[in-house]
Amino acid sequence: MATTAESRLARLRNALDSGRLLPVKRSLAALNPAEIADLLAALPWAERKLVWDMVDPADDGEVLLHLPEGVRGNLIRDMDTAELVAAAGELDIDDLADFVEHLPETVAQQVMLALDADDRTRLESVLAFSPDSAGGLMNTDTVTVRPDVSLGVVQRYLRRRGDLPSHTDALFVVDRYGGYLGTLSLDKLLTRPEEHLVAQVMDRSREALPVTMQARDVAQRFHSSDLVSAPVVTPEDGRLVGRITIDDVVDVIRADAQHDWMSMAGLTEQEDLFAPVRPAARRRAVWLGINLVTAFAASFVVGQFEATITQIVALAVLMPVVASMGGIAGSQTLTLMIRGYALNQIGGGNTLWLLRKELLVALMNGLLWAVVVAVIAYLWFDRLSLALVVGLAMLTNQAIAALVGVFVPVTLKKLGIDPALAGSVVLTTFTDVCGFFCLLGLGTLILL
Amino acid sequence: MATTAESRLARLRNALDSGRLLPVKRSLAALNPAEIADLLAALPWAERKLVWDMVDPADDGEVLLHLPEGVRGNLIRDMDTAELVAAAGELDIDDLADFVEHLPETVAQQVMLALDADDRTRLESVLAFSPDSAGGLMNTDTVTVRPDVSLGVVQRYLRRRGDLPSHTDALFVVDRYGGYLGTLSLDKLLTRPEEHLVAQVMDRSREALPVTMQARDVAQRFHSSDLVSAPVVTPEDGRLVGRITIDDVVDVIRADAQHDWMSMAGLTEQEDLFAPVRPAARRRAVWLGINLVTAFAASFVVGQFEATITQIVALAVLMPVVASMGGIAGSQTLTLMIRGYALNQIGGGNTLWLLRKELLVALMNGLLWAVVVAVIAYLWFDRLSLALVVGLAMLTNQAIAALVGVFVPVTLKKLGIDPALAGSVVLTTFTDVCGFFCLLGLGTLILL
Repeated sequence: MATTAESRLARLRNALDSGRLLPVKRSLAALNPAEIADLLAALPWAERKLVWDMVDPADDGEVLLHLPEGVRGNLIRDMDTAELVAAAGELDIDDLADFVEHLPETVAQQVMLALDADDRTRLESVLAFSPDSAGGLMNTDTVTVRPDVSLGVVQRYLRRRGDLPSHTDALFVVDRYGGYLGTLSLDKLLTRPEEHLVAQVMDRSREALPVTMQARDVAQRFHSSDLVSAPVVTPEDGRLVGRITIDDVVDVIRADAQHDWMSMAGLTEQEDLFAPVRPAARRRAVWLGINLVTAFAASFVVGQFEATITQIVALAVLMPVVASMGGIAGSQTLTLMIRGYALNQIGGGNTLWLLRKELLVALMNGLLWAVVVAVIAYLWFDRLSLALVVGLAMLTNQAIAALVGVFVPVTLKKLGIDPALAGSVVLTTFTDVCGFFCLLGLGTLILL
Repeated sequence: MATTAESRLARLRNALDSGRLLPVKRSLAALNPAEIADLLAALPWAERKLVWDMVDPADDGEVLLHLPEGVRGNLIRDMDTAELVAAAGELDIDDLADFVEHLPETVAQQVMLALDADDRTRLESVLAFSPDSAGGLMNTDTVTVRPDVSLGVVQRYLRRRGDLPSHTDALFVVDRYGGYLGTLSLDKLLTRPEEHLVAQVMDRSREALPVTMQARDVAQRFHSSDLVSAPVVTPEDGRLVGRITIDDVVDVIRADAQHDWMSMAGLTEQEDLFAPVRPAARRRAVWLGINLVTAFAASFVVGQFEATITQIVALAVLMPVVASMGGIAGSQTLTLMIRGYALNQIGGGNTLWLLRKELLVALMNGLLWAVVVAVIAYLWFDRLSLALVVGLAMLTNQAIAALVGVFVPVTLKKLGIDPALAGSVVLTTFTDVCGFFCLLGLGTLILL
């Protein structure tokens, strides 16, 4: 059985702490690039550099690719051009495209020049597409066959050709102009009679993905059709230009899932837990600054009711309860909505239904907790009208939280703004401002 | 090109709204089970039932499997036993195991009885393992070969055998007692000379996964070794018992990524956006109730300073700013920590480094925003000592937020509590209570 990530990490750290570098080198040599990348990502950046220098240069490229973007950028900045060119030499075209995109312009050009002409053309064809599209995800290492040959001929061709590219579960059938016709799975190739023609056996129903397809839609297609690899074609003339494999799609799924989550806390999915202090502080300062504006907006509302608070301090005491319960309820709705968008579940006219549902949920819970809060307030301050005011403010703010929780992501989406990023700021502004306003406003009306 | 999920949804809804069921049926027939599942998940539950009844019964099983758990439970509750048995009949053993686990006990038994003896034994062997383990993820449809035969013989065997199970990228090599020896990839089978023996060509370095391995570790292994399928063995004697394929691993990755995110908002990853109102309200009530307790804790702290607030209302006005900025900073740290745990990056002694780093980040930002807040407070209330108090409270609370943001998940993890679930409640309790206490306490000391 393999050792767990944590125990490997602990062993490596012990070796580092003791200053003995030989054991570090030895334990690194036993790991594959993805495992080394995981280890590097879990080291504070000073030690990370130290360990990185000990990685076998032949693995540099693969390791860099498996690193989260934030960490990779960090390491690339400290490598010289020769090292980068060498690292790039070890990579597949699709991985190389990923890699080159993260290099400084001048270094990228030197890497390109170091390639042979064929590879350079292939690389340029992949780089021409957005990294978030099928074209950016694809590799050009397709193995193609013609429809009019027999399976026996295909097998002899493969034996002469040698190893297949990784994740090859199917060959692609093309016409003489490179037009995609269908897919010949290795399964069929191995289980159908040798004398059958490719045309008889191939699967024509497997649709190719256009190079322009969005990465998210590619992931969706892999999921819904349970694919291991898929052909990529030009949308104009259906010419086969490449192949997307499940390993790259899994990376898309991972990044996508983390993107929304991190965004809601004002972080990017590339944020490196072990980054140096100063850049980390700088990146987070922006988010805090934005939130400061919204906090002062709430504070301003409270400021309008200074006279009320002086007379009834209990209102100031209960302020946090009303506001925070609104924030909690709203963020539940918001989180569900953002996931709904991620899963393509929102749209096509179900928004109104959702609004009604979330509002009803909020009213049921609002009623329940308004009564509880009112009772506690009554027991605490012994004043029935105050209890009434708090209860009413609670109920209203819960309803507002639901409305805002649905409307904010829908509106942001329409404006082309990422609801995961901006949603939570806008939401808490509303629930804080409205919560304070309801409580202090009702208090002024009823209690003074 | 395939139509997008959203346009399919809109078309279906139009048909539903107009009450014409024939177009609905027709558009359903054009979709595969995963696509139907996505559609169902995006429909309000009343319409969902309507559409579900129109799904071809032969697809029922597959569609149910592709549905999120929350939605699936909902539909299963309304099916009768005959329908469930029929739906189960269409599934692979690993999928069937998933499915049976979600059935009421009596129905599960009837489904088991409806299977033939072989399948029942296989199903029972899978059901014996936790669904979160390799055993629970595996299928029993392995294709095995012996090491002492030639590739030509293997090929003739496959031609006689017929179609391979889906996602077969390799055959497993076993000894006469079923002990796992290595892997024969289809790639090698197709590209090496026919007269070579399996033993010469097979990959002995591909380690099998023990049935007891955690699902999360399985996903990690697939990721780090870029696998499409992997053999599963008994840990005692290394006997091959099954095979895990990438499609099931992708489901684990998806569920895992959503789990932490949803948990932080007090939701489960199964929460159905389109669930009926009453159960949704009930599930969320718990979370609101827990948060109410923490809100009252903060409120109680404020209550201790009633006398101070009566004299300096400005403190009540500035309360939300100090508390919310602490909450924001703390939740950034918490989110990074929880993701760090998900990626296996925390442990092995890097916690102290993290604490130092997060504290430094907090102090840098705390200083910056404390000055900004102090200046605004001075301009607003024209009182230098008040500005000083607010600034100090801000700085202190930012530092506390960082400490809590690191310590809370570490402690919860040690106690065996999911930090994603409990972390945010504990964190905001600290940042609210400490924020109010610092501001009002310092105010009482310095300003009165």
